[in-house]
Amino acid sequence: MPVKLSAPAAETLLPVKGVQLGYAQAHIRKPNRKDVLVMTLPEGSSVSGVFTLNRFCAAPVTVCKEHLQQGKGIRALLVNTGCANAGTGQQGLDDARASCIAVAQALNISPEQVLPFSTGVILETLPMEKLLAGIPAAVANLQTDNWLNAAEAIMTTDIVAKGTSRTLTIDGKTITITGISKGSGMIHPNMATMLGYIATDAAIAQSALDAIIQHAVNKSFNCITVDGDTSTNDSLILMATGQAGNTQIDEKSAGFVALRDALTEVAIELAQAIVRDGEGATKFMTIQVEAGKDEEECRKVAYAIAHSPLIKTAFFASDPNLGRILAAIGYAGIEDLDVNTMQLYLGNVLVAEKGGRAASYVEEQGAAVMKESDILVRVVLNRGAANATVWTCDFSYDYVKINADYRS
Amino acid sequence: MPVKLSAPAAETLLPVKGVQLGYAQAHIRKPNRKDVLVMTLPEGSSVSGVFTLNRFCAAPVTVCKEHLQQGKGIRALLVNTGCANAGTGQQGLDDARASCIAVAQALNISPEQVLPFSTGVILETLPMEKLLAGIPAAVANLQTDNWLNAAEAIMTTDIVAKGTSRTLTIDGKTITITGISKGSGMIHPNMATMLGYIATDAAIAQSALDAIIQHAVNKSFNCITVDGDTSTNDSLILMATGQAGNTQIDEKSAGFVALRDALTEVAIELAQAIVRDGEGATKFMTIQVEAGKDEEECRKVAYAIAHSPLIKTAFFASDPNLGRILAAIGYAGIEDLDVNTMQLYLGNVLVAEKGGRAASYVEEQGAAVMKESDILVRVVLNRGAANATVWTCDFSYDYVKINADYRS
Repeated sequence: MPVKLSAPAAETLLPVKGVQLGYAQAHIRKPNRKDVLVMTLPEGSSVSGVFTLNRFCAAPVTVCKEHLQQGKGIRALLVNTGCANAGTGQQGLDDARASCIAVAQALNISPEQVLPFSTGVILETLPMEKLLAGIPAAVANLQTDNWLNAAEAIMTTDIVAKGTSRTLTIDGKTITITGISKGSGMIHPNMATMLGYIATDAAIAQSALDAIIQHAVNKSFNCITVDGDTSTNDSLILMATGQAGNTQIDEKSAGFVALRDALTEVAIELAQAIVRDGEGATKFMTIQVEAGKDEEECRKVAYAIAHSPLIKTAFFASDPNLGRILAAIGYAGIEDLDVNTMQLYLGNVLVAEKGGRAASYVEEQGAAVMKESDILVRVVLNRGAANATVWTCDFSYDYVKINADYRS
Repeated sequence: MPVKLSAPAAETLLPVKGVQLGYAQAHIRKPNRKDVLVMTLPEGSSVSGVFTLNRFCAAPVTVCKEHLQQGKGIRALLVNTGCANAGTGQQGLDDARASCIAVAQALNISPEQVLPFSTGVILETLPMEKLLAGIPAAVANLQTDNWLNAAEAIMTTDIVAKGTSRTLTIDGKTITITGISKGSGMIHPNMATMLGYIATDAAIAQSALDAIIQHAVNKSFNCITVDGDTSTNDSLILMATGQAGNTQIDEKSAGFVALRDALTEVAIELAQAIVRDGEGATKFMTIQVEAGKDEEECRKVAYAIAHSPLIKTAFFASDPNLGRILAAIGYAGIEDLDVNTMQLYLGNVLVAEKGGRAASYVEEQGAAVMKESDILVRVVLNRGAANATVWTCDFSYDYVKINADYRS
């Protein structure tokens, strides 16, 4: 069950001026579920994207990058679940392009103005007949208040729909931000297996939007892991329709930092929601590594802890088997780490220092922290001034069940 | 259940001239199990060791390295299970040294001639009273034909005892090799969480023995992974008593390669046994990566596949969800990998080429391979002449159960 996470109420996901969303049940893989989403943007919108670094990137990712590069002004996004269109060679590219053409025809725009996304099983080709039948159905019900339906339409093994909104005031104008995300397995940074769509009605210059998405993804989706697997399809898209009435924001504008931070907050909430809904998750863990020489070594330690199946199963069991954490710190790859000068905390409890168990530590304290559903693991390296934080979840019977049965 | 692995019959583990083994039930962690082992070697034996690279290496590992370095001639090994004496700071070092003193007193040798080993729970100190009581009991039943008892005495979460023997003829003399190992979780190269002890009665020069252990470990224990966790206590020890009557072998001797290869075979069998007995294992997988630019990139790809929980759970389910393997190849870290020129085979079945599913592939073929208990995954990178092989196992409900319940 998701850890302290429930689907947002429909009315809490605020419409974003200029954005319309429509969905369809196209039976791509399973009957009776929303599996196709079309989002439309008004002319003049700015759009930025960041994508998986997996060398086996999916066909739609390749096409997304091409269309963003061509700069003809993105006007629509198409998402399907049930099939990732990854590991599909030339056929996959042909299918992704054909689906853009279909959306373009339905909306009277050009195919280069469409971004395609797919998520689901890898190594199978898209059932194009079903997808092409779903597109006009999704276009037919385009609405501004369809964000919760949209969040539901992009789910795969997700248990709950993920979305959030923020408002802020810039130039005396109310700016609205709404984002949705999906993903719960194959979650790893650079990026998570996930799709994320964040829209705002603010007017933002393209260069500022590009800077904001990099900032936001580094603080959010690049800090989460469920299982260490980096997907072929990960995509985060940031869209700005420019209909809020504010003066266009660039990196020197007074409102830039406030807007960047609000968008980053939304990205963090969406990223954490993916971990809270991690496959089989029963615990949400924040791994905070402090006082390292540089951010990279802090991230190495944080990910060594976050990826260890031994640690993840111990958290599942609420077992303060903290020696496993020390072992992970030890093999994280910091060759000159002095284990005698670092400290390990579980929540606020000092667990280990001077290379061993802290004299003050009694297991009951650790056991009490482990019973919580949100747990902080703090490693203080005492080697420098850098920090890094990673969010992850535990490893349960249900993780195995979900992934052993995924295709059945 | 272990994958095609059963405990050796006692009579198949051949005595090695000069080696005696004794065990005790010292109740270190649990009652009624053999948990202390003492091995003794005759004067003049050569001994080599390789140890964990974990920065949080256990106290006994530190002491082992010191004693090997001092070069006073190793005469005895002490192993306890139930407590790893790792993450135990100064107390841990004091305890490891005190246990060497106790063995030395019982055998009338000096403490620097004793190598101590511990395996079990991390971050707890050794129950010295129990251990010290066990040492004379183990010494009291030292025998040459005690190898199976010794293999049983070093087990922790292992289901079956692991051991094997070989004989070969050099100089007209019969050379005997017998080895035992333990380990089933926290298994990763450099090294596996494991203890391995291989003895031979051949006379081997120290420098030749050092060369052989490096060769053997790189072909065996450094090629296995269960869960990617590198232990604090991993140790492999190679011992040569010199009592077979052969002329001492150095790296230029005629018998060197034959002896090295026989010892390496034993190491491979012991290493593979650890994977076959991997926690919760139901499948044994050989990941063979071929035609890479260098061995390092082949190993990266092999380990990306071997560590992926998504792949491991799919193998558990006998589900030919091969897209997950492509995804792992894609995120393995080869930045200039051309996914269109590589091939993926499952057993002898060509599964993927040209960036997608092979035209000839039908899922029934993949499903048939997945039902086997020993499965070969072959990745042909078509970039060069280097190869690497890694052995691993699947990821089952029982893996979670074993590790969630380990301390209870």
